[in-house]
Amino acid sequence: MDGQGMNQTAELIGGAAESPAAAAARLSGGTAGPEALRPLVDQVLAGLGAGALRRGGPIVPGEPAAVAAAVRAALAQAHGPGALGQLTELLAYGAADPADPHCAAHLHCPPLAVAVAADLAVSALNPSQDSWDQAPAATALESELLAELAELVGFHPDRAAGVLTTGGTESNLMGLMLARDQRLGPDVELNGIPAGVRPRVLASEAAHFSVQRAAALLGLGERAVRAVPVDRELRMDPAALADAFAEAGWEGATPVAVVATAGTTDTGAVDPLHAVADLAARHGTWLHVDAAYGGGALFSKRLAPLLDGLDRADSVSLDWHKLGWQPAAAGVFLAREARTYASLARRAVYLNPADDEEAGYPSLLGQSLRTTRRPDAFKLAATLRVLGRDGLGALVDRCHENALRAAAIVRRTPELELHCDPVLTTVVFRYAVADPAESDRRNAELRRHLLRAGRAVVGRTELPGRGPGRVRLKLTLLNPHTTEAELASLLHAVVEAGENA
Amino acid sequence: MDGQGMNQTAELIGGAAESPAAAAARLSGGTAGPEALRPLVDQVLAGLGAGALRRGGPIVPGEPAAVAAAVRAALAQAHGPGALGQLTELLAYGAADPADPHCAAHLHCPPLAVAVAADLAVSALNPSQDSWDQAPAATALESELLAELAELVGFHPDRAAGVLTTGGTESNLMGLMLARDQRLGPDVELNGIPAGVRPRVLASEAAHFSVQRAAALLGLGERAVRAVPVDRELRMDPAALADAFAEAGWEGATPVAVVATAGTTDTGAVDPLHAVADLAARHGTWLHVDAAYGGGALFSKRLAPLLDGLDRADSVSLDWHKLGWQPAAAGVFLAREARTYASLARRAVYLNPADDEEAGYPSLLGQSLRTTRRPDAFKLAATLRVLGRDGLGALVDRCHENALRAAAIVRRTPELELHCDPVLTTVVFRYAVADPAESDRRNAELRRHLLRAGRAVVGRTELPGRGPGRVRLKLTLLNPHTTEAELASLLHAVVEAGENA
Repeated sequence: MDGQGMNQTAELIGGAAESPAAAAARLSGGTAGPEALRPLVDQVLAGLGAGALRRGGPIVPGEPAAVAAAVRAALAQAHGPGALGQLTELLAYGAADPADPHCAAHLHCPPLAVAVAADLAVSALNPSQDSWDQAPAATALESELLAELAELVGFHPDRAAGVLTTGGTESNLMGLMLARDQRLGPDVELNGIPAGVRPRVLASEAAHFSVQRAAALLGLGERAVRAVPVDRELRMDPAALADAFAEAGWEGATPVAVVATAGTTDTGAVDPLHAVADLAARHGTWLHVDAAYGGGALFSKRLAPLLDGLDRADSVSLDWHKLGWQPAAAGVFLAREARTYASLARRAVYLNPADDEEAGYPSLLGQSLRTTRRPDAFKLAATLRVLGRDGLGALVDRCHENALRAAAIVRRTPELELHCDPVLTTVVFRYAVADPAESDRRNAELRRHLLRAGRAVVGRTELPGRGPGRVRLKLTLLNPHTTEAELASLLHAVVEAGENA
Repeated sequence: MDGQGMNQTAELIGGAAESPAAAAARLSGGTAGPEALRPLVDQVLAGLGAGALRRGGPIVPGEPAAVAAAVRAALAQAHGPGALGQLTELLAYGAADPADPHCAAHLHCPPLAVAVAADLAVSALNPSQDSWDQAPAATALESELLAELAELVGFHPDRAAGVLTTGGTESNLMGLMLARDQRLGPDVELNGIPAGVRPRVLASEAAHFSVQRAAALLGLGERAVRAVPVDRELRMDPAALADAFAEAGWEGATPVAVVATAGTTDTGAVDPLHAVADLAARHGTWLHVDAAYGGGALFSKRLAPLLDGLDRADSVSLDWHKLGWQPAAAGVFLAREARTYASLARRAVYLNPADDEEAGYPSLLGQSLRTTRRPDAFKLAATLRVLGRDGLGALVDRCHENALRAAAIVRRTPELELHCDPVLTTVVFRYAVADPAESDRRNAELRRHLLRAGRAVVGRTELPGRGPGRVRLKLTLLNPHTTEAELASLLHAVVEAGENA
């Protein structure tokens, strides 16, 4: 078009005589978009600052019911142009903010400002990656980023295939879906799970619960997942994996996939990838590696060797909203061989007609479980250009060093008991109480005590096994700016809460 | 904490002596976040403006290979602090911008600036809705918004349940998953699809292809989906649905679900919801209504009656990144009865331990297929407070009126042929050519001609059936600011391209 349309739109929405309804209906795109966004972004930045000041700590203090009542009241009162700032202040006040050094519970990272700003560009333009003509540059950009990441994990970039995902849960689902469709016959997509098949998915006891969820979703059933025992650090025991294969053989079951974990949620343990890959190869079974957490170690020269053998996986999950400091979502699924990546191929006449493909129009539709899809690749691509791989590696190293420092503090604190040495950036420990049931109660309660006081957000988990005495606390250290003094203060708060709980 | 940590962080990252690496590593959260974001947001807004000016039209002109080469070159050159602005300009230059009146191909809306700004707050704070202690206020806010939306579709807010999703594809998958797990027995999650079952999903020929995808993913097989014939406007024929139920009965197959569409992608047609609900009820079969597109009509007093009967669905898909002007993703899944929503219940000891729930800590983990999950509810809640339901309804009405205007222009243009009257905001037509094969070739080629010239982004689809002559063009009108003159200019461009193709 000739620009006339944009000028008319600018007239319609701009000028002194603009009505409140017209102002509220301004769009973020086109040449007028930045000016429409500027005052609203100012409202948001002011609301973020005011909310953080009012919160004054890592998490909003108080009981969940009180927070819910405040949200209800704010939603009932807010209306008109100022509502954006009011609701932003509410969201910031009512947050658990991982940028606060005392917020260290989950694989919930404090995002880099550069990644957040890049994500604003994506929201404003709203490209959707289900067809080229909704996302010309974004389509090419995702392909380029995936080739870089394939090389990072040791795959051949020209042979690998992949997609950005909403996270490890979706990536693990995709890995198991490809494994299912490969192993149970090419017809499973068309005709469903063949009758009489008894599928098995072999994963460690410490594998993420999304593996069970994926098996249930895929129609294999959760019980298809067999939990392979782990050592104290929560690494899969390869001898036990060999036993699980043998058991499947005796029972006439079909091993569909082995899932190895590179960075368990709790201890950051990495399964012995070469030993697992050897067994998977011997049995002709798909190997999916869940590196949602541990994948970040690939940026660190010091930690990358932990993931040696990752290049032998058939498919891999990576999550840059964990050790990559991206706002959610920034998941990645990669398959080593593009030819195994056929399950999702679909022809939608309104999105990827055959004659468009012949004319050179690429389509990412067959890469994803989704249709409409935001280009989450952009923020990571921008972050990699601004910081570089080494810059991200330095942040990984700082968090790793903080885990070592925190473990050292736990070791020298008599009230606390370390579970095992940190592998990546988590520290698993407990407030030491001799009676197992009382230990569980006290640790669970002290964590809620810290939440209610708005003083700290500490993780809580349970070791594998049965019976009492397994509840543990956890620091998940993802803030590269946290100092040793702050770690000491955080652990001091845990001790105080343990005494009072 | 006492504020000491944040001050130390501010020292570490602020001040005149800040190194480039420290500047690049600034976080978006905490009290220092807004100041870290401001210069980066300025870079992004400048890049968006410069890219839109350089593009100068609805889509980057040229072949996909040229766009890909430009992206590769930019990624190779960009590094350091300025890379964010450079890459943003690239993304904007290389966009198909739905804020331009000549970009009207897909259900790909131009977002409202207010929704985009609200999304920035979400990115900056990075709440994750898989546990309360990652998203205290966001957890409550999603529940409140879902209650409002349940009421909007006619469900009882206290009895309904739901979740924000990545879009209609995920929502349709969830509906079919609940249907599968209800109909094939409570054990299907644990033990997989029972042997010997022959499942059926009944959906119209014009239902979204994600229904087939969902059946394949769920282990039912694509062939479980039976395509029920439609009328010219692409509405499901209830007599044909009755036949499909009878056929399933003769074959001993199990009808797992009926999927009705409220707003087909091409014509916006709404299946006869009451007639379909009557048949589903008679056969005791789950009714899922895909209102991903048509749901927006609920905001319009004029169009809402089209969706009469929606309240009889067992589950519903809604997408506010279509007729709701949100940046992707803003999907919603709703189930009428919370008790049917059990498939995803999981106990993850590190996310929703039983004693936390007893202590009043709510968990949304069991509502979603995902684990990490961005609060997409926030931008829609903010939009609803700033514009109101009526404000959104006015935008829906303007797009509907534009569809009627565009159809009138098509009718009076001898070179063009209208397929049927617009229902919502799409117009299906073709450049009229007598020979069916030549008609298909000419219409497909004229669309690519407009893309290559950077002149217009027009949709292309195919009518149901077999053989040549089914290719059609489509305008999907989602820009409420588009004028009648712009519609005329867009259709004039189509005619010119048809003459030259």
